[in-house]
Amino acid sequence: MACPAAKRVLVVAGIGNGTGTGASTARLFAKNGYNVAIIARGDSFVQGLANEINSSGGEAASFTVPSYSHDHLTAAWASIHKHFPKPEYTVRAAVFNVAYGVLRPFLDTTSQEVQESLDTNVGAAFSFARGAILAFKDNGIEETNGARGTLIFTGSTGSVRGNVTTSAYAAGKWGSRALSQSLAKEFGQQNIHIAHSIIDGSILVDRQREHRSAEWAENEDIRLRPESIALSYLYLVNQDRSAWTWELDLRPAHEKLL
Amino acid sequence: MACPAAKRVLVVAGIGNGTGTGASTARLFAKNGYNVAIIARGDSFVQGLANEINSSGGEAASFTVPSYSHDHLTAAWASIHKHFPKPEYTVRAAVFNVAYGVLRPFLDTTSQEVQESLDTNVGAAFSFARGAILAFKDNGIEETNGARGTLIFTGSTGSVRGNVTTSAYAAGKWGSRALSQSLAKEFGQQNIHIAHSIIDGSILVDRQREHRSAEWAENEDIRLRPESIALSYLYLVNQDRSAWTWELDLRPAHEKLL
Amino acid sequence: MACPAAKRVLVVAGIGNGTGTGASTARLFAKNGYNVAIIARGDSFVQGLANEINSSGGEAASFTVPSYSHDHLTAAWASIHKHFPKPEYTVRAAVFNVAYGVLRPFLDTTSQEVQESLDTNVGAAFSFARGAILAFKDNGIEETNGARGTLIFTGSTGSVRGNVTTSAYAAGKWGSRALSQSLAKEFGQQNIHIAHSIIDGSILVDRQREHRSAEWAENEDIRLRPESIALSYLYLVNQDRSAWTWELDLRPAHEKLL
Amino acid sequence: MACPAAKRVLVVAGIGNGTGTGASTARLFAKNGYNVAIIARGDSFVQGLANEINSSGGEAASFTVPSYSHDHLTAAWASIHKHFPKPEYTVRAAVFNVAYGVLRPFLDTTSQEVQESLDTNVGAAFSFARGAILAFKDNGIEETNGARGTLIFTGSTGSVRGNVTTSAYAAGKWGSRALSQSLAKEFGQQNIHIAHSIIDGSILVDRQREHRSAEWAENEDIRLRPESIALSYLYLVNQDRSAWTWELDLRPAHEKLL
Repeated sequence: MACPAAKRVLVVAGIGNGTGTGASTARLFAKNGYNVAIIARGDSFVQGLANEINSSGGEAASFTVPSYSHDHLTAAWASIHKHFPKPEYTVRAAVFNVAYGVLRPFLDTTSQEVQESLDTNVGAAFSFARGAILAFKDNGIEETNGARGTLIFTGSTGSVRGNVTTSAYAAGKWGSRALSQSLAKEFGQQNIHIAHSIIDGSILVDRQREHRSAEWAENEDIRLRPESIALSYLYLVNQDRSAWTWELDLRPAHEKLL
Repeated sequence: MACPAAKRVLVVAGIGNGTGTGASTARLFAKNGYNVAIIARGDSFVQGLANEINSSGGEAASFTVPSYSHDHLTAAWASIHKHFPKPEYTVRAAVFNVAYGVLRPFLDTTSQEVQESLDTNVGAAFSFARGAILAFKDNGIEETNGARGTLIFTGSTGSVRGNVTTSAYAAGKWGSRALSQSLAKEFGQQNIHIAHSIIDGSILVDRQREHRSAEWAENEDIRLRPESIALSYLYLVNQDRSAWTWELDLRPAHEKLL
Repeated sequence: MACPAAKRVLVVAGIGNGTGTGASTARLFAKNGYNVAIIARGDSFVQGLANEINSSGGEAASFTVPSYSHDHLTAAWASIHKHFPKPEYTVRAAVFNVAYGVLRPFLDTTSQEVQESLDTNVGAAFSFARGAILAFKDNGIEETNGARGTLIFTGSTGSVRGNVTTSAYAAGKWGSRALSQSLAKEFGQQNIHIAHSIIDGSILVDRQREHRSAEWAENEDIRLRPESIALSYLYLVNQDRSAWTWELDLRPAHEKLL
Repeated sequence: MACPAAKRVLVVAGIGNGTGTGASTARLFAKNGYNVAIIARGDSFVQGLANEINSSGGEAASFTVPSYSHDHLTAAWASIHKHFPKPEYTVRAAVFNVAYGVLRPFLDTTSQEVQESLDTNVGAAFSFARGAILAFKDNGIEETNGARGTLIFTGSTGSVRGNVTTSAYAAGKWGSRALSQSLAKEFGQQNIHIAHSIIDGSILVDRQREHRSAEWAENEDIRLRPESIALSYLYLVNQDRSAWTWELDLRPAHEKLL
């Protein structure tokens, strides 16, 4: 049985510059009572995000990794368990939000870029998922949703379509989608909820703001709010065991369905 | 612009014997402030459901049709608009929950059964969707979700897989899924949200209770609660315009992903 | 056991004006030793095609139907069996090439057009398939391909994508694709081969010639030759039982994959 | 323009122990006039296969690589061009038949196995495809099929489904399928034909013979003949430019469609 007094922990990997899906998810879950462990490469943004959450009444800690290699991710999970020890804390949600997205014609794509896409989009997804599932397996079943834990993968248009400049990117994203499907089949029976989200459109992050018009940034019909993606993740985590979603897509109202 | 004082109306078609997805959706939306119009074939159950909602502080009305033909559904929509007139009321959500599901080997399936499946699963879906979209087009954009309205189709495993005893059923369900995809592409740009839900497992309705064990009925890991499906519909309706879902799947924790 | 001396018969339904997939399939199979039964609506073109095949050393007969209703198709199959009686003849291949394709915005699509699409694209497919499978079930297993018979459905882009002007068309084509999948699962085990072909591009038929440039007609990189589609059908029929294809796609070299 | 006298070369990578798809493809193309270059890891089987083809009137050469790394595959392509120099020879077909398939529960799968699956199923596919496309780009368009060349990827059930013991394998196979789709979209317009074949069943290779009954080996309804898969590859290469297939599936008659 889960200890009723245990504090719930969300582990999220990948927050970019702190303005996108990962950061919004951290903020939203913090507001909803989760302690937040943030895994990020480089600490320029993650420390700021953790501070922001901590100063708004939440509890967050950053776990910086030099790379998303298996060893570094495994070490990050160990540090998280040390920082949020049982039985006081229980990891109940994990979001893999890391991606490497080179866009290039096939013949201009180097073998290093292919390797980087596979390492980051797929290899790191395996290592992160391993940490999450090992953490969940020890948990009791939570009464509210009937789950030991929920693991969400952030996917994209490239997770379901290859295209002329996305050979390396799509190969990686299809790979992590396959992983999420295999895990859903294997671990659903152990009350671990695995979900995959297809973000099919541009997200309003700082980098996009710079390259696009103010009109684009203000028009909610044509770009995704990271806060709305985060709301979908919270909904997925809250689904009760009788009706779990493996996959949903998300796009702005005026974005044409793929 | 939508009149801020307008009362929101949900129109749901198909409630079976009042223990499944359609009825749970009616109840949940009523609790969340929607007036509910229920279209059903035969009035043995629909009147009871409307009474139940009305006596629990909600507002519901039943619209009985002799069949789900185009003419009868068109007439039902006209009656709904008469019962819930503008500008006092605004139809904001519509759920097509009608299905005809004969399961039979192909050579035992009659042309009448094929016709019935196409009429009910596809033809009625077209007629119902027409009523919904005509109603939505006149609406202003709602501030909360940026939508003129939301139309949800209840799908099933048969919507994405044909199988040995489902030739007629799957042909109909694939057809209505295709409709939902076409509508999503055409009407997203007009801020009408179209969604399709794949219910991939058995739902705990009375008819299932009779054929299955008490153990089955009590085990939330292996059958879907209609209330949980209804929650997903409310979530879909509440999604803001920057992140709309066309399709999601729902299954119990221990049901293997298709 | 099939009588080794039995002459193979191909039944094809739907030949348009005699310049497309159905007609090319009839011609190609005739050249490859099949007797050909052609089911068509109206006899303006079918008689000419039968004559052409008969005068080129083939053997063809036309079976005109007033509509593709269940009764008319059932009667056509009876006439075919009378014209090509057992044991002298054996129906070994059947191609459903009938389609009804209204392209129209959803709100301009009438319920009659929806009905026509469902009747023609799905209902007629069921009735034709019934005739084919009943014919095949009596056959012995052919040595060359290990099949009692092969049934091919002509699909299109609309069989796998709904779009802004294809709500009625796509609903019908998805429905017949679902049928083909159900049949493949049910009858593969009885050595009946079911295949579905996704023609994903424009076919060089007379009607297209009229609406397009001579350049288009001459450029094999951008439009499909009906003869090439027919070659794919012959390949499918010739596949041996150890390696059968349910589905393949076909498009011109310069047409972008859907 | 391609020199009409140029001899066609097939390059195939991956032949296992010489009893499966790769070897059958080499033999069949040799019989159909192709010179064959075989890339294989270790030379225990490849030399025997080359000898067999050469002594049956074909022309084959083996190109052994210590691993399917980018550098080794690049070197192999260079050796092939040296062995089959232009303009006497022209590489017209290439088949990527390499796969690494560990089957293991997720938590028993090591990061080395994940890496190996990504390297072999995806990374090697990129490197092999690069060699093929660079070779094809220099070719003139062949009159018979309108192609500069044809590149085929051997896929499997794991290319379209993840499952409980296939997390690492499926991640790799989905990745190479994504690659094939990206390439089809990018290079179709340059008259390079890219195809992906889903082998959805067990192939009759020596390793399977050892683990299964004689009955299984003899029953063509339940396992795939490698020769039949090879026939499908020859059909794909021979398709003319007006009707190219990106993807087809292949399974024995009694194997249920996935």
